[in-house]
Amino acid sequence: MSSNQRQYRQQAESFLKNLSGAYFPNSTREFLHGSRADIRVPYRRIHLSKSLHQPSPGIAMPDNPPLDVYDTSSVYGEPGANIDIEQGLVKLRQRWIAERQSSQERGVTQLAYARKGIITPEMEYVALRENLGREHLANPITAEFVRDEIAQGRAILPANVNHPESEPMIIGRNFLVKVNANIGNSSVSSSIEEEVEKLVWATRWGADTIMDLSTGRNIHQTREWILRNSPVPIGTVPIYQALERVNGIAEKLTWTTFKEVLLEQAEQGVDYFTIHAGVLHDYIALTSRRVTGIVSRGGSIMAKWCMAHQQENFLYQHFHEICAICAEYDVSLSLGDGLRPGSIADANDEAQFAELRTLGELTKIAWQYDVQVMIEGPGHVPMHKIKENMDEQLKHCHEAPFYTLGPLTTDIAPGYDHITSGIGAAMIGAFGCAMLCYVTPKEHLGLPNKEDVKQGLIAYKIAAHAADLAKGHPGAQARDDAMSKARFEFRWDDQFNLALDPLTARAYHDETLPQESNKTAQFCSMCGPKFCSMKISHEVRQYGSQRINIKVKDAAEVSP
Amino acid sequence: MSSNQRQYRQQAESFLKNLSGAYFPNSTREFLHGSRADIRVPYRRIHLSKSLHQPSPGIAMPDNPPLDVYDTSSVYGEPGANIDIEQGLVKLRQRWIAERQSSQERGVTQLAYARKGIITPEMEYVALRENLGREHLANPITAEFVRDEIAQGRAILPANVNHPESEPMIIGRNFLVKVNANIGNSSVSSSIEEEVEKLVWATRWGADTIMDLSTGRNIHQTREWILRNSPVPIGTVPIYQALERVNGIAEKLTWTTFKEVLLEQAEQGVDYFTIHAGVLHDYIALTSRRVTGIVSRGGSIMAKWCMAHQQENFLYQHFHEICAICAEYDVSLSLGDGLRPGSIADANDEAQFAELRTLGELTKIAWQYDVQVMIEGPGHVPMHKIKENMDEQLKHCHEAPFYTLGPLTTDIAPGYDHITSGIGAAMIGAFGCAMLCYVTPKEHLGLPNKEDVKQGLIAYKIAAHAADLAKGHPGAQARDDAMSKARFEFRWDDQFNLALDPLTARAYHDETLPQESNKTAQFCSMCGPKFCSMKISHEVRQYGSQRINIKVKDAAEVSP
Repeated sequence: MSSNQRQYRQQAESFLKNLSGAYFPNSTREFLHGSRADIRVPYRRIHLSKSLHQPSPGIAMPDNPPLDVYDTSSVYGEPGANIDIEQGLVKLRQRWIAERQSSQERGVTQLAYARKGIITPEMEYVALRENLGREHLANPITAEFVRDEIAQGRAILPANVNHPESEPMIIGRNFLVKVNANIGNSSVSSSIEEEVEKLVWATRWGADTIMDLSTGRNIHQTREWILRNSPVPIGTVPIYQALERVNGIAEKLTWTTFKEVLLEQAEQGVDYFTIHAGVLHDYIALTSRRVTGIVSRGGSIMAKWCMAHQQENFLYQHFHEICAICAEYDVSLSLGDGLRPGSIADANDEAQFAELRTLGELTKIAWQYDVQVMIEGPGHVPMHKIKENMDEQLKHCHEAPFYTLGPLTTDIAPGYDHITSGIGAAMIGAFGCAMLCYVTPKEHLGLPNKEDVKQGLIAYKIAAHAADLAKGHPGAQARDDAMSKARFEFRWDDQFNLALDPLTARAYHDETLPQESNKTAQFCSMCGPKFCSMKISHEVRQYGSQRINIKVKDAAEVSP
Repeated sequence: MSSNQRQYRQQAESFLKNLSGAYFPNSTREFLHGSRADIRVPYRRIHLSKSLHQPSPGIAMPDNPPLDVYDTSSVYGEPGANIDIEQGLVKLRQRWIAERQSSQERGVTQLAYARKGIITPEMEYVALRENLGREHLANPITAEFVRDEIAQGRAILPANVNHPESEPMIIGRNFLVKVNANIGNSSVSSSIEEEVEKLVWATRWGADTIMDLSTGRNIHQTREWILRNSPVPIGTVPIYQALERVNGIAEKLTWTTFKEVLLEQAEQGVDYFTIHAGVLHDYIALTSRRVTGIVSRGGSIMAKWCMAHQQENFLYQHFHEICAICAEYDVSLSLGDGLRPGSIADANDEAQFAELRTLGELTKIAWQYDVQVMIEGPGHVPMHKIKENMDEQLKHCHEAPFYTLGPLTTDIAPGYDHITSGIGAAMIGAFGCAMLCYVTPKEHLGLPNKEDVKQGLIAYKIAAHAADLAKGHPGAQARDDAMSKARFEFRWDDQFNLALDPLTARAYHDETLPQESNKTAQFCSMCGPKFCSMKISHEVRQYGSQRINIKVKDAAEVSP
């Protein structure tokens, strides 16, 4: 290890140690327990203060129950936890995997078990996790329901047998909408340590999965550090590493090289592969009149290969072999939309939908191998064309989960594409998209830094939650209701703590009213004390209750 | 003038002078000309560079035509313009108003003229403005169409006869979706000069109208400065000033006090009044089980008054007199939604819709007086309940334009409510909402500063534009297409200049690639040179064109 590397390592470790001690304010990490001792599902409990006003004299101020929320931050969110990034995380699933492997030889995927009617510990874990906050509501999520959704192909549980560090999670439209964050260095920017930092940072802000899109040097080593330290499933686009192997010359790609990369990454523990097997030779001509051509990196690489060789896409030709490898490790397939539109002008065109139909055919093949599948989607799509994407996907891809990048609803706001795409993401989430790939403010402009990662994630947690509400997901509204009750009762600290980003909410409030006394004030600087509608609204209610009291009294007086 | 005031003034003037010299990069202010010399409609022309690659040897690099966009920045956007905030802006409409007043005694509203079949210079101005970029498309916007939309009550042109400084604009669902920015000090924060600064700042970033929601001291003086320096219509909520007059005690409000305020503000030149005349006494009880009660400031004040006096809302009782005042000055009415929901839990409830139906009745009364009307809408609404708002509004309010605050699609992200609400705003805009009232990141937390105003506006310009695209508004996609073409051709400077926020787009790009040479580079730091999909896509097209050339050659060879 060079002194330069050592210095980087020390910086990264020091960062991680700091981060592990800085959990969200007034929150504790708690666990749900399953049928066996080693099924412990973490969640975050946000503790709330009492209501500030006595309902009536002599009656104590009412407690507000804590709010429990899904937590992706893992041990990094545990105050005082001992983080050793060289050691990696605890291998949570190792025993489950070993037990299964000793009992049988073939069919190690969650889909294989699901189809056999076997509920794995992972499925039980997921059921507990998804059921958080809806335990007492109608239609709780059961482990059997999880198994069935996986068996039907409507949901996937990405969990490479060689990534035992991951905390099980599920992607499917009958579960909470998930968010993916892309990290990864390009050759121009970033270091390995920065990428591990971004991983921890991203899971802190709610990333459900991470895609490592590194393309620079040290691609293997970067991924190793990420996998060993990641509590969430890791996705990759193996063609990037394959291209590195042939010095960036797409024409030199071969199935043999690609297969080596697949095996290497599967062996390392990658949980899902984006494979651009739907970019067929015949479809390339369909992009020739597009405003922005082919904007998927993998898609453009495969198109170039096809054109150079005048041959069919080798990922399509060898798709059965790809499935066989994935089946061996339980790598899920994320069928890439190499021909997704990169501009409003190109949305929903024949190139895009031709590829989508091919992805539907490939889905059926993957399922023959018990390989879990999701389908990637666009891209840039104006609002009125978003629903058609979801409808076509459901129709042609046999209800395999949809996983979209945005979509961006306009092209005109680089620097704010977390917003242009947050709009589209919320909408397609409400229509049934299972996972939303975030877009950061740096999209189209450069490699995102840590702050961009956070901004992208917050925008996408908003989109995912708005979609959960719109779908009527049981329990989703509990956090909104807790926030709104705190708001109406002027419990400022609770409002901050319940927010997706407690630190920013508090900082914004404190810009104008930093005094501690204002944390219980019945106003903020937006309207001032005289014009606070909520304060006046309480006074209106007092009038209301006085009237009722008077009426009751009147009634008592006239009664015999 | 105290020395303190003088200092503030100097600061504000120096700011304005600086701002006037800092127009958007590579843009010029141009004018469309109407049927008379004094109809000059400003717009911004974004000049683009040539495409960087020769289509084939010997052929010059193609020009890219400039892109013309709607411009609200007025003379503040004119480099070197002489700004004198004490003098105020040029009284653009003064002659038009005077000419009309000399020819008749009654009926000075744009609605009155429209109904009589008269096309005012304001209508012609608006037609030119709305038609920008669609002159050569089917269905251009004509002055007669503008007149007819106003006559039908489907659109309003807010233009107080005493605010001749304003540049005419129109609010209606068959025109471009508009954005309103709220400014105004509260008693806790801000100064007059800061508010004028915010006005100029807001119009720079695209505010189509401004609401002055000041509630502190100097409410009259603040408004005077704003009106005399505002090129966009100014809206107010007169009940705020009325409440100041009775020392903040809602119970002491009277119709007499309110009427005085109305007359004062109308005389000053306010272009539209938010009037909470739909908060009927009977509806207040409908809010008693709400999570967040009444969250409109005006709504809560009127509810308190009604409860205290056990009387009907005096704004409802005196609505005819309000209309008579508005008719005299051409103040448009913005019928306030005093009972709008303030949380997801309270969305689309009976209180909200009961008030909406009353607003529909009031609309008909206002129209009797030739008063222009729009209807205010929520608030906090989950995505699946947004369309119902638009449908109910159209149904009960006779197609008067809808003007909504957001709506916020979740309550859980204070600090990011420009995003939670940008999602809802884009959706309701696509459904037909005519104007979107912005929400800044400070919503629920404090008074927005300049940066917050900008962030709110950018989010809402995105929402409005996304809605225009979704409605298929002719010409709207031109900017997206120009951006995407620039993107595909690696014209980085053009991409920045076409962006809603050119400065941020450039700054983000330059974080990793500041060198001038990278402004023509065929990659950015996101993917690096080897992995740029667009670069590869060009190579794919080269293969394509080579093949076609070969085919043509083959064909030539086999032909006799």
